[in-house]
Amino acid sequence: MRMVHGGDWAGFEEKYGRTPLDFSVNISPLGIPDGVRRAIVEGAEGADRYPDPFCRALREKIARKHRLPAEWILCGNGAAGLIFRAVLACRPRRTLLTAPAFGEYEAALRAAGCSVVWYSLRRERDFIPDRGILEAIRPGVDMVFLCQPNNPAGTVIPRSLLLQILERCRDAGALLVCDECFCDFLDEPEACSLVEKLPEAKNLLILKSFTKLYAMAGVRLGYCLSSDPALLKAMEASGPPWAVSSLAQAAGMAALKETDYVRKVRALIRTERPWMAARLEELGLGVCPGQANYLLFRCSVPLARPLGEKGILIRECGSYRSLDDTWYRAAVRTHDENLRLIQSIGEVLTHG
Amino acid sequence: MRMVHGGDWAGFEEKYGRTPLDFSVNISPLGIPDGVRRAIVEGAEGADRYPDPFCRALREKIARKHRLPAEWILCGNGAAGLIFRAVLACRPRRTLLTAPAFGEYEAALRAAGCSVVWYSLRRERDFIPDRGILEAIRPGVDMVFLCQPNNPAGTVIPRSLLLQILERCRDAGALLVCDECFCDFLDEPEACSLVEKLPEAKNLLILKSFTKLYAMAGVRLGYCLSSDPALLKAMEASGPPWAVSSLAQAAGMAALKETDYVRKVRALIRTERPWMAARLEELGLGVCPGQANYLLFRCSVPLARPLGEKGILIRECGSYRSLDDTWYRAAVRTHDENLRLIQSIGEVLTHG
Repeated sequence: MRMVHGGDWAGFEEKYGRTPLDFSVNISPLGIPDGVRRAIVEGAEGADRYPDPFCRALREKIARKHRLPAEWILCGNGAAGLIFRAVLACRPRRTLLTAPAFGEYEAALRAAGCSVVWYSLRRERDFIPDRGILEAIRPGVDMVFLCQPNNPAGTVIPRSLLLQILERCRDAGALLVCDECFCDFLDEPEACSLVEKLPEAKNLLILKSFTKLYAMAGVRLGYCLSSDPALLKAMEASGPPWAVSSLAQAAGMAALKETDYVRKVRALIRTERPWMAARLEELGLGVCPGQANYLLFRCSVPLARPLGEKGILIRECGSYRSLDDTWYRAAVRTHDENLRLIQSIGEVLTHG
Repeated sequence: MRMVHGGDWAGFEEKYGRTPLDFSVNISPLGIPDGVRRAIVEGAEGADRYPDPFCRALREKIARKHRLPAEWILCGNGAAGLIFRAVLACRPRRTLLTAPAFGEYEAALRAAGCSVVWYSLRRERDFIPDRGILEAIRPGVDMVFLCQPNNPAGTVIPRSLLLQILERCRDAGALLVCDECFCDFLDEPEACSLVEKLPEAKNLLILKSFTKLYAMAGVRLGYCLSSDPALLKAMEASGPPWAVSSLAQAAGMAALKETDYVRKVRALIRTERPWMAARLEELGLGVCPGQANYLLFRCSVPLARPLGEKGILIRECGSYRSLDDTWYRAAVRTHDENLRLIQSIGEVLTHG
């Protein structure tokens, strides 16, 4: 059992004999919102019933949020579940992935036996693609995955380039899958999102997550948006009918009411991210100027084990294509927790 | 949105303006066990954490129950999720399915672009395969799905034939996927199960469900057993890493302690199933002699709408291959509920 993602508490507990302070996953540090927790508790009683396979009530609520038709929405067992469905539904011959990017794009493509073309993002450009990516989207490429903001770098593709990519995909006959799972943590989510392009772009699939913003990673809920009903229908058929539990559906509906919680999370990230980046730089570490709720940084001293011994879990990034073991990703958490991380890294760097 | 399964409460409520008394899904009628409900409630607080993708603690408990190594177990988002993973992992060229059988075998094979060979089960034999199935398992067939007991018929393949099928699969180089999701409702589950054959049969994959026996269909949890670690590894890679929510993992661990609940469910089914079958026959309906927690019967008068108007949901079986709209499946529930079903069918037959 090799764990290539963050959040492996069971593995951490086995190794260090305690529960971690977890910087390895990029979820809201404010815990599960009260309303969401209550929805799960109340949903437990009726959990003997099968979930609505079409998530009708939840999709109505998501539709209202985005002011889009409910027919343009498909819910899934986390955004990761939807990535696998999208790949299976499209069976692309050739798919363009950026390196680095979230590992499940490649995992899904490998599982479906599809071939991958890599577009390397350069460290000197903070892992933001340049216009060269447009040339890589040539006929024969029928799917492109973008991560906006990038995971693990946290950087954002400028809007003008993003729109050119979308256009280029249309011309090449490629589906653009834009993973906006961390978009809601940005200061101006709308400016980075492609949602407004959906009505005119049938070749666009946008992935969204409940997991991160609402701190409900254990519940499993994500959704995607597309103005192509045939695509969503094919994705629906590409996996089991009850992938979204009734508890997740109830939790999702409750989450959409948590506007105050979201405001608090965003305010916290807005203050803490730059503070944390500055402290990491003071420690002499190279920090990628990410704009999301996590930071990618580089450290030549191995950090995972000494931090683990201090009860802290961070994300080693050696499993990301184009990165190596000197890269780490840490979530932005509450101030005291971030302070503890910074102090602990400082101790490791000073005392080894 | 076409619903080809039972349990579509949202659809029923839309149509009839009330919640149904649900005979369309084959789950325990005793509701979610107290311990399982409590585990979900307690799990809600920590649901901000990602689930353990390897379900380590839960697999340990399942392993102990079956006295098998934890490495032989893979948990999934319901047994349906594991069916899709098995198909993707194996990419069979040709798969033998019985008709009728649970619809998700075919759905998964279609999604993966795999071709299907049908073996028709005969009504005169109560949908129990005869020795002819052995000849259908010839080289070139590399996967065989069996449903033991059959869904929707509820009948059981005699042990001697089952063992011959397993042997024949081995000789033909085919994986036998034996879906034992309803096995626990039988009077003698062990006599019908292939679990004891696992150590010697690497070409055997057994599907098990928590959904039905523990009335936790809304939670989504199933598992499979195989002595071929490479198969389970490939299935693990065939879907997203966090398919099983932390709530489902907690619920599953609690469920395994509910031995008293299971005893009660089995006793209820043992008494009620023959009672219900006898009443349906008294109404002049042909009843398949199923041994599980549901009954397949035939009625030339349309039942779904008039029963729906009385607040009762049953499973129309026209979507099953080899069956038509005159077939219905009804779960065995508590005595008063079964009585209400029988009386309601009686009224429909008398008054139309």
